Amino acid sequence: MKKDLASDALAPVAGNGLLHRRLFLTQGAAVLGSGVALLTARNASGAPLEVPATMKTPGVPASGYGERSRFESKVQRITNGAPPTPGTGGSRTPLEHLEGIITPNPLHFERHHNGVPDIDPEQHRVLIHGLVERPLVFSLDALSRYPLVSRIQFLECSGNSAGMNVPEPAQQGAGALHGLVSCANWTGVPLAILLQEAGVKPEGKWLLAEGADAAGMSRSVPLAKAYDDAILALYQNGERLRPSNGYPVRLFLPGYEGNMNVKWLRRIKVTAEPTMTKDETSKYTDLLPNGRAEMFTFPMGVKSVITSPSGTQKMQGAGLYQISGIAWSGSGRVRRVDVSADRGKTWAQAKLDEPVLSKAIVRFRLPWRWDGGSSVLMSRATDDVGNVQPTRAKLMADRGPNYRYHYNAIQSWNVTAAGEIGNVYV
Amino acid sequence: MKKDLASDALAPVAGNGLLHRRLFLTQGAAVLGSGVALLTARNASGAPLEVPATMKTPGVPASGYGERSRFESKVQRITNGAPPTPGTGGSRTPLEHLEGIITPNPLHFERHHNGVPDIDPEQHRVLIHGLVERPLVFSLDALSRYPLVSRIQFLECSGNSAGMNVPEPAQQGAGALHGLVSCANWTGVPLAILLQEAGVKPEGKWLLAEGADAAGMSRSVPLAKAYDDAILALYQNGERLRPSNGYPVRLFLPGYEGNMNVKWLRRIKVTAEPTMTKDETSKYTDLLPNGRAEMFTFPMGVKSVITSPSGTQKMQGAGLYQISGIAWSGSGRVRRVDVSADRGKTWAQAKLDEPVLSKAIVRFRLPWRWDGGSSVLMSRATDDVGNVQPTRAKLMADRGPNYRYHYNAIQSWNVTAAGEIGNVYV
Repeated sequence: MKKDLASDALAPVAGNGLLHRRLFLTQGAAVLGSGVALLTARNASGAPLEVPATMKTPGVPASGYGERSRFESKVQRITNGAPPTPGTGGSRTPLEHLEGIITPNPLHFERHHNGVPDIDPEQHRVLIHGLVERPLVFSLDALSRYPLVSRIQFLECSGNSAGMNVPEPAQQGAGALHGLVSCANWTGVPLAILLQEAGVKPEGKWLLAEGADAAGMSRSVPLAKAYDDAILALYQNGERLRPSNGYPVRLFLPGYEGNMNVKWLRRIKVTAEPTMTKDETSKYTDLLPNGRAEMFTFPMGVKSVITSPSGTQKMQGAGLYQISGIAWSGSGRVRRVDVSADRGKTWAQAKLDEPVLSKAIVRFRLPWRWDGGSSVLMSRATDDVGNVQPTRAKLMADRGPNYRYHYNAIQSWNVTAAGEIGNVYV
Repeated sequence: MKKDLASDALAPVAGNGLLHRRLFLTQGAAVLGSGVALLTARNASGAPLEVPATMKTPGVPASGYGERSRFESKVQRITNGAPPTPGTGGSRTPLEHLEGIITPNPLHFERHHNGVPDIDPEQHRVLIHGLVERPLVFSLDALSRYPLVSRIQFLECSGNSAGMNVPEPAQQGAGALHGLVSCANWTGVPLAILLQEAGVKPEGKWLLAEGADAAGMSRSVPLAKAYDDAILALYQNGERLRPSNGYPVRLFLPGYEGNMNVKWLRRIKVTAEPTMTKDETSKYTDLLPNGRAEMFTFPMGVKSVITSPSGTQKMQGAGLYQISGIAWSGSGRVRRVDVSADRGKTWAQAKLDEPVLSKAIVRFRLPWRWDGGSSVLMSRATDDVGNVQPTRAKLMADRGPNYRYHYNAIQSWNVTAAGEIGNVYV
């Protein structure tokens, strides 16, 4: 009997309709053979299309700095309520509206402690001082003369997903819940070169980094990180940094919690010990169940979230879907992402789009044939140093109810038979 | 005698001051040892910085769709004179103002044949018809339901750099000369899947792709390319396509000349032969010295250009610089870029920033100690199938003076003792 390749390719690899990650590769599609209806969401018709108005009238000319379509204006960063003080707070990347791995600059998340300053780059200076042989002051022109390096890397606020810490799951979308993470092509001057030039004294082991905003945001950074992969970032996705991301210069510490990547950087002081700034003592410490707090928990954990389908979206009827989402780790490269459609009972490995880069967002995908019944979708990322994204139950048990930062548990989306998608605790 | 590591690291590796590509890696910087003045463009001072006004007043709050700094408004796409017909022409990416490999969406180059249409995605349809078993019509909602794939890839107009074809070198910047190239994270539906579903008949060997603009831009595409890596692109750097890049959907053919990546795509017709549209017969053919013309020269050649320092910029005095630029190939991955500072007599291999992706822009860098004398800077890219960027002399000799498209010769920048940088033919 002839082997039925088409039905083999469509055979589930895990519970509740998860299909093999290679199904939609070109080879996979060919295996299906003609005539297999992949998706229900199409309409067949042989008639020519009506000639639209846009083909009868010339369009608008080219422009100097382009704008998006007026039909996309609903896609905005998300602010969760009014902040307690003007200028504090932030806005989240609308993850469920985006695709790929690059966050466009206008939608990169923001987190400010006293608003966004309007800095004239001609006037701005960066001072390197403290335990150095030669204190240095850099204008932006001088900094721009230095060697640059570019990398694609994520940035995540350590308070991202803190809303998952409440007793009842908030019925919000992927962006509102987890959108304090973005990914960009950052270009800047390796901090190691500047420190080398200043000449760090042997007793120098830490840095203080201070911003030129009205909060004077400042954090202590181990010197080892500065020598590893820290940069003074000048460019974001090709163009100069946006003001909300530190224009004209920010510290960028790949994989480290967002607020350490000090924006509007004006000063780096080399010190023997951490400075114990207000921003690392009154905040950004992790209170444990035993009443003690962890400080200086720098790298962001391994994490993932399914963005399609995800909370507040609606399924479009039973049939074939592509589950898609993002994953990242502050410790290195994402090695694999597994997806479950049956509340975590069984898992199938997702496909990762190239490039899969260290400390960058990766995009994962897996085909799913939804039978129209109720389902719980989950994703679980593993990085190349062996960290595995924990369940929410385990994270909460380990860290207790007061733990606010570094929430990286598995996100579960509940799909009802009516096609509604909601945030659920599993 | 103790070996002098610092002077070793600063020893030239090619003529006129080119230094080793590893000099500025962390390890390289460490080799230099403290006290080696890397760059002249710095000022030493131990005094605290004056507290700027931005630290005394709260900044502005977060926003929904962010804007760049008012101090960056000079960075614009470049239009070379008024186009002959309203809406035709285009605008170029200001390469000399950008860094990294991603072009931000507002600065992605444009090339239009009758302006930018304003398309309502609710009304837009894509028809697949011709030599297929089942003609299909897709709404944007239906298309968005299909599996997606994301890649970082360049797009280049086949007429890019055509201005290098005039007898005297135009004194323009890198963007004005070569800015009809950009690079983005494109996401879309693999065309292979849609064709599979339509069921291509055995006699189908080509596609006709037609846009919904007033030019009805249309090109013929070999079916093999459609099955290889073509997508119907919906997203550009995370967000939906910009109108100037084909909103709501464009054909994207990695590595192929720009105009084949039909914007505002409304129709794909499977055919047995190329359709010989106006856009592939009256234009986009390559006239040869013998009076014959080449048609269907699809992939863009291997190419590079130094963007810093580059034409119209000025050197800031003798000393250490980082030469930086971009390279790409329509045939695959850039394998190496070599740089010369002595008019092509000697060459040194540049460092390539990760990621180095197939059919994507890569960023190359090489340290250079400028002695303040006159120099000619050149870059030469080689791709992984062995194509090497030709000299201008060779390209012009091979192709003759009427060859307008696919210009990919080595760009030479002349540096005078006064620090002026100009376009020069070598």
